[in-house]
Amino acid sequence: MKQSNLFTKTRREAPKDEMAKNAQLLIRAGYIHKEMAGVYSFLPLGLRVLNNIVGIVREEMNAIGASEVLLTALQEKGVWEKTDRWDDKKVDNWFKTELKNGTQVGLGITHEEPLTQIMTEYISSYRDLPRFTYQFQTKFRNETRAKSGIIRGREFLMKDLYSFSKNDEQHKDFYEKAKQAYKKIFTRLEIGETTHVTFASGGIFSRFSEEFQTVSDAGEDIIYIDEKKGIAINKEVYTDEVIAELGLDKKDLVEKKSIEVGNIFNLGTKFSEPLGLNFTDTDSIKKPVIMGSYGLGPSRVMGTIVEILSDEKGIVWPEAVAPFKVHILALQSENESIKKVAEELYAALTKKGIEVLYDDRDLRPGEKMTDAELIGIPHIVIVGEKGIKDSVVEYKHRKTMKTELIPVNMLVNTISAKINA
Amino acid sequence: MKQSNLFTKTRREAPKDEMAKNAQLLIRAGYIHKEMAGVYSFLPLGLRVLNNIVGIVREEMNAIGASEVLLTALQEKGVWEKTDRWDDKKVDNWFKTELKNGTQVGLGITHEEPLTQIMTEYISSYRDLPRFTYQFQTKFRNETRAKSGIIRGREFLMKDLYSFSKNDEQHKDFYEKAKQAYKKIFTRLEIGETTHVTFASGGIFSRFSEEFQTVSDAGEDIIYIDEKKGIAINKEVYTDEVIAELGLDKKDLVEKKSIEVGNIFNLGTKFSEPLGLNFTDTDSIKKPVIMGSYGLGPSRVMGTIVEILSDEKGIVWPEAVAPFKVHILALQSENESIKKVAEELYAALTKKGIEVLYDDRDLRPGEKMTDAELIGIPHIVIVGEKGIKDSVVEYKHRKTMKTELIPVNMLVNTISAKINA
Repeated sequence: MKQSNLFTKTRREAPKDEMAKNAQLLIRAGYIHKEMAGVYSFLPLGLRVLNNIVGIVREEMNAIGASEVLLTALQEKGVWEKTDRWDDKKVDNWFKTELKNGTQVGLGITHEEPLTQIMTEYISSYRDLPRFTYQFQTKFRNETRAKSGIIRGREFLMKDLYSFSKNDEQHKDFYEKAKQAYKKIFTRLEIGETTHVTFASGGIFSRFSEEFQTVSDAGEDIIYIDEKKGIAINKEVYTDEVIAELGLDKKDLVEKKSIEVGNIFNLGTKFSEPLGLNFTDTDSIKKPVIMGSYGLGPSRVMGTIVEILSDEKGIVWPEAVAPFKVHILALQSENESIKKVAEELYAALTKKGIEVLYDDRDLRPGEKMTDAELIGIPHIVIVGEKGIKDSVVEYKHRKTMKTELIPVNMLVNTISAKINA
Repeated sequence: MKQSNLFTKTRREAPKDEMAKNAQLLIRAGYIHKEMAGVYSFLPLGLRVLNNIVGIVREEMNAIGASEVLLTALQEKGVWEKTDRWDDKKVDNWFKTELKNGTQVGLGITHEEPLTQIMTEYISSYRDLPRFTYQFQTKFRNETRAKSGIIRGREFLMKDLYSFSKNDEQHKDFYEKAKQAYKKIFTRLEIGETTHVTFASGGIFSRFSEEFQTVSDAGEDIIYIDEKKGIAINKEVYTDEVIAELGLDKKDLVEKKSIEVGNIFNLGTKFSEPLGLNFTDTDSIKKPVIMGSYGLGPSRVMGTIVEILSDEKGIVWPEAVAPFKVHILALQSENESIKKVAEELYAALTKKGIEVLYDDRDLRPGEKMTDAELIGIPHIVIVGEKGIKDSVVEYKHRKTMKTELIPVNMLVNTISAKINA
């Protein structure tokens, strides 16, 4: 894409009321726009990143046999009353509104209830189990404080997966697969090393839930990590009893702030019982379905990546989620030989299926460099007056900021190799 | 996909309160689930169709140079007050809710205001124009009556495109491109022949808007069509004056009910003036930006396709939007030779990149046939006892219901050829 066709521009300053580093950088670089606290629009660059994250998550969900659906934001009161989660005194972050006829409706905070309800129409026998269903859907949560940029939104994109099993064995089998899928996802997103499976409170049906916590000073959670054993404990269950139960020693545990990027819950029959999701088992006895839920917020993950991988110059995207793989800068775009080399390279890389942002704008060289570093595309190719005389261009790796000179005639192969590396 | 892995099943009856044919068929075939009037969830088959429609629309939007964004549902009052569209007395289909601190917010009915607001940060000179921006986004409209299934939703997916131009010439140039893109889209969706460009009321800045109206008894609009000239007039502007102005003759005009599947509006400076979206022109004079809007609802289009292309057996999908291209039925799935042929065909077509639904379920042959006709996948391959002895399978074209026998060893090539035809 030619940068002159991108309607966004970088900005020197983020809005004054924006406190979060992730949103500050994303707004300054033109990825998102703040509509109000906790409510952000995604501009072309931002939507590309979000879609890349969604694509990775979708691949891993499909790989474990889950089926994608799309439920609704508008929620009917009745189904939530059955599980006692409608009353604002019970669940305090509902947005509610009403139909013309006065009927109160809510905006989905999560989707256990409506999906369980749907499943009652399709599950009746052990032959119908197991089922695994997920969606990417906009959730609405009326947060009192929404100061963490796109990490805690009042409106945000969520991937929520639910499993339906006939017994504990079937449930545990999928639970383990989903856990491994999450590990793969965070590894592919290049935040795997700083993301820890963390024991947290489990609710009614399970001693613990498991959270995926990414270490970051921007986090709202506190966890205690045993690096050697690869186990962490959320502060909410950090007691001597739990430490002993998990076979850990307090002196090996290091306290860190962290961001919860994913969670998995054993729901047991918490939803299937009140909503009547039953099946007839092989023994002809009617039993409630065993459920699990597996959440992961793509927009929150995007914010987390910005928090932990950016540097003082700007954003540093992992290749798998970057809006483009290569950023070509024609430093002096009025210089015909520079323009020619830049456009040939742009055409050649694009032809190879490599996504390129080509800065063809009429701006000073310094501004183009500053913009490229702020935007954070992994591979930067600088076509400028200095090198062009010797038929070389400068290559800069955004993450390490290391530069090298590459002969023009070796450019396409060298850059392609770096991307695949 | 193996049909045994699809959690949905067909149903004999749609919910009793469901009046619309499109929703009745889509619910019975397991494409959608009704949450409440005008609010439908998309199940795996339904989401596949919706995504296919979105894919076609996206390709045509990108082809005319538009950039994709994703705005928010939650809307801040201030920006809508500037255009006088916040007050319920002015716009009567808002859903409104409030933040914890009591601030009233709305759920986006459309997005001229927030996008114009965003553009004020990126457009300041004639050099920044034109810009074309679109999104696929969930809209919320508090409809008094929502009886048309997914054709008129309280919550529905919308593709809205907006153009920003420096003068009429630039505006008209894109307007014409967008109009041609819409024609291409409806042709690709196989509703082109029954979809008419229709003159309708234009609002403040234009004598007319142009609607794309698909002839259907399920329609809520009435149009008058001159088939020869390929022009239609919406009843709302059907006066002797307008008929004369368009050079038409009343006796050539045929009255039809129709569904509005798309619309394009000249917005002039209706939004740019109150929201301060100005640019400095080549003559150094500050001027308001000229805008256009171009709407198309993928979920409404999906409902329209069902309304006009289904028959007494069920849904008939155009190949471009069908959830799968081929439906293989293993009529007696317990018969090993039938199973073998069906699975080999499933594997071979899948390997060729053709999307196949394979009915491997343990059901009676008649049920499988009835299900396949209801679900409406274009190409049905029936592997059954009768033919297998002679090494032939039956092929049924869903649209024409014509059948033929195909030798097993010619199956892959014959089916592939039918799909590309």
